[in-house]
Amino acid sequence: MSKLTTRQIDAAIKDAPEWTNTGEAIQRTIQFPDFAAAMAFVNRIAAAAEQAQHHPDILIRYNKVTFTLSTHDAAGLTKRDFDFARRIDAMLTTK
Amino acid sequence: MSKLTTRQIDAAIKDAPEWTNTGEAIQRTIQFPDFAAAMAFVNRIAAAAEQAQHHPDILIRYNKVTFTLSTHDAAGLTKRDFDFARRIDAMLTTK
Repeated sequence: MSKLTTRQIDAAIKDAPEWTNTGEAIQRTIQFPDFAAAMAFVNRIAAAAEQAQHHPDILIRYNKVTFTLSTHDAAGLTKRDFDFARRIDAMLTTK
Repeated sequence: MSKLTTRQIDAAIKDAPEWTNTGEAIQRTIQFPDFAAAMAFVNRIAAAAEQAQHHPDILIRYNKVTFTLSTHDAAGLTKRDFDFARRIDAMLTTK
């Protein structure tokens, strides 16, 4: 899995407009009604991460969860990060 | 719940030596065998946090979990933070 070029990242982020490019990662913060709802979503993402063998950094601050995606092996962003970002987006809209 | 003084914090941290005082919070990073073990522990702490109605910030980076405790209402550290820190410590040694 090779690191995306700046041009490829600019193109990929257009399909993931909720995500912010922080340089070597993409990040999205999602707000839930409360801590229990935040944890429930984190657990769904954790299961998906195990399945994909691609694990975002997850920061839980009460009802706000920040996911940070990057590919450590490539020392930057790869297609896997954008694939998983879109998976998180999709899981937000499904129960 | 009132904010602890610097002297009180210095005394309290002696009973929680695994924790680092970052100024307005205390922090501990714990390493687990893998992501699944990290998530299992996070879920135990999440249940304890709901019970105590005191929620640490939780950062999960694959098999490493960082807990950050502070009391937002007091804009600093209170006894509740140290009580919960010791609870996390105790839960590490029990199944």
